[in-house]
Amino acid sequence: MVKNQNFQTLKGFRDFLGEEAQKRQWLIQKIQNTFERFGFEPLESPVLEYEELLMGKYGTEADKLIYRFEDKGGRRVAMRYDQTVPAARIISQYKQQLIFPYKKYQIQLVWRADKPQKGRYREFLQCDADIVGSSSLFSDAEILAVYFNIYKDIGVNLKLKINDRKQLIDVIKQQGIEDAMVFSVIQSIDKMDKKTPEDITQELLKKGLHENTIKGLFEKLQSVQPTESLQRIQDVAIKLGVQNDCIQFTPTLARGLDYYTGMIFEGYIPEYEGGSVGGGGRYDNLIKDLVGVDMPAVGFGLGFDRTFEAADQLGKIPSRKSSSKALVTIFSPDLFEKSLEITQRLRNSNINVECSLDDTIQLDKQLKYADRKGIPYVIIIGPEEAKQNKLILKDMKSGEQETLTVEKLAEKLKKN
Amino acid sequence: MVKNQNFQTLKGFRDFLGEEAQKRQWLIQKIQNTFERFGFEPLESPVLEYEELLMGKYGTEADKLIYRFEDKGGRRVAMRYDQTVPAARIISQYKQQLIFPYKKYQIQLVWRADKPQKGRYREFLQCDADIVGSSSLFSDAEILAVYFNIYKDIGVNLKLKINDRKQLIDVIKQQGIEDAMVFSVIQSIDKMDKKTPEDITQELLKKGLHENTIKGLFEKLQSVQPTESLQRIQDVAIKLGVQNDCIQFTPTLARGLDYYTGMIFEGYIPEYEGGSVGGGGRYDNLIKDLVGVDMPAVGFGLGFDRTFEAADQLGKIPSRKSSSKALVTIFSPDLFEKSLEITQRLRNSNINVECSLDDTIQLDKQLKYADRKGIPYVIIIGPEEAKQNKLILKDMKSGEQETLTVEKLAEKLKKN
Repeated sequence: MVKNQNFQTLKGFRDFLGEEAQKRQWLIQKIQNTFERFGFEPLESPVLEYEELLMGKYGTEADKLIYRFEDKGGRRVAMRYDQTVPAARIISQYKQQLIFPYKKYQIQLVWRADKPQKGRYREFLQCDADIVGSSSLFSDAEILAVYFNIYKDIGVNLKLKINDRKQLIDVIKQQGIEDAMVFSVIQSIDKMDKKTPEDITQELLKKGLHENTIKGLFEKLQSVQPTESLQRIQDVAIKLGVQNDCIQFTPTLARGLDYYTGMIFEGYIPEYEGGSVGGGGRYDNLIKDLVGVDMPAVGFGLGFDRTFEAADQLGKIPSRKSSSKALVTIFSPDLFEKSLEITQRLRNSNINVECSLDDTIQLDKQLKYADRKGIPYVIIIGPEEAKQNKLILKDMKSGEQETLTVEKLAEKLKKN
Repeated sequence: MVKNQNFQTLKGFRDFLGEEAQKRQWLIQKIQNTFERFGFEPLESPVLEYEELLMGKYGTEADKLIYRFEDKGGRRVAMRYDQTVPAARIISQYKQQLIFPYKKYQIQLVWRADKPQKGRYREFLQCDADIVGSSSLFSDAEILAVYFNIYKDIGVNLKLKINDRKQLIDVIKQQGIEDAMVFSVIQSIDKMDKKTPEDITQELLKKGLHENTIKGLFEKLQSVQPTESLQRIQDVAIKLGVQNDCIQFTPTLARGLDYYTGMIFEGYIPEYEGGSVGGGGRYDNLIKDLVGVDMPAVGFGLGFDRTFEAADQLGKIPSRKSSSKALVTIFSPDLFEKSLEITQRLRNSNINVECSLDDTIQLDKQLKYADRKGIPYVIIIGPEEAKQNKLILKDMKSGEQETLTVEKLAEKLKKN
């Protein structure tokens, strides 16, 4: 047993402090702005749900990963495992008051009792957007467009692979593969990105497929053309802002989930090696299967941690160690009022500033505090400056300093 | 048993949809902006902690309200009950890398298995700010100032009651009340707001105090003056932006928690009848008691639900049923490209717009959708407009419509 283990973060869980918390907030805000620009509205569900709602909805293996327990009232409850099932409950529960097509986004944490490993956590953020109650191809295109534009707004070059799940199923069936095997074959094809065709052939052989069937399947997948509806989705998506050369028909794209019924897609960033950063598609039967409400839908899930990592590696997330633009120092106890006055005036001009919180601490220690905290500027008001109603602004990076009036200072800090 | 109970929200938990979710986001953003303007940085802790960290930290009654269970790995874990204890863990865990004074804020959900009733939920948002590692009175003043300014920024008239817990304890002891009884007496005095002096007298009599002692205590509490340090905190707070007439020395202010060691305060909104909207104070021993790290601190907790209710009742939270400024309709299937083009141009100008997602739906149905969703404007591009490169803008409230170019439209929507 580790000593004081109870004073540690649980394995697979994370604390977010200062700079990292701020960077995450920046990205969340960006994503949220794009959602709203496309007319999606926020949706929040509680962390706890009746266990019965979640169990059996994600497959037997996933059931084992659900955090669940009995509450004090004897109810079996479970922590949010994804955002799709709670959203389905909400659609069923509020269907009289919701206006369809319902365009909603959800940015919330989910919990999975998975083995923690690099890049995989037990608590992580999911960003979902869906259009519920529309079977129009325009909705598929709008989903592609909002997803693509999130990355465009961040400044990251996203590529989209798209495919038609219906056509993929048809191709598989045309090889004489029986219905019960289709999804298992899809799951093997889904690994095309990470494995060699030989590996997948081996896997399919083990699943009982004949060598010729597999060969036929691979050949067919190579020659297949986008369906008319997929072509149209692609055209409309381009009109809604997806860059022409960023969207690519990929007949081997399979997606691991069994509920997709039409267009499917995956996003990846060529400069980022961490894998797909999100994906989705049309799922016209899922809400009915989950909660008994017949409701076509199309949507996606954005992988926040991977998107964050990619954007951060590419230098797209502004880094500020401190939220403050400047530290207003206190020169000496008799001059503290002047410093408070300047602090107050800058804050009233909507500038983020800290003020030294102790009038007995030496100036050089105050400068050191600003330096360690990464506050870019320091403001000094000595007796001479106080008399002249001016102040000294010191750039902590260059070490340069200048004497200014408060008005000039506010102007300068607003610009920087 | 309710039918399909598993498809309902758990008792004491809430779903937030559309308008309400948006209003809450607005308020969170406001609070966050004020925190950052005062140089506080964000801190996020996981939902789950080792049970041992939380148990016994809030008192025996509170322990019963903690959501806790055994995870798959046999660890006893518990859901966040407040933000102070996880923050103490983090301060202990990261004390080498943190820079003190550490000014942090936390805006996160907490869970309490309380009896749900009007205004009391099992899942609710807490907003805390603290300055850790400073025993300067300036820090107390900064805490009052940031709390006050949150409400000022929202546009709500906040009053602050302040007191010195140390002096309150001295006054109680001066009446000859024994040490072991002091906190129990404080808890009775804390009810001064909600109960009559007679009720409190009765309560104190039951606790074993003599009638004369109680009388003496009440008299003394009436005549007591603010301590020198409290006076100084108040002066500095006023210099940092707290309005002079909004801060009131209240010698009977007690606060229910036992850990305060100096200045204590509570905020209330005269126009709002739901009670105190938050409060806090100095707690110089708590972090040591919790995690063994000697660290003076001062901070507050803001009641989000009450603050939201008050601000909403007072009409301070902008209400928009939809995040979209306009719906771009599709006049007919042959004109859909024109509508997509306009949508795309408006979004590129950073205007939130929806586009109709189906080119086979009649125009009047599209208008009805915009009306029901509360989208303020509708844009129509018929054959005539398409030819002239113009469009019709219809104000859904007044019913007025005008013909414009896209440029004029973007200008107009940006202003509104």
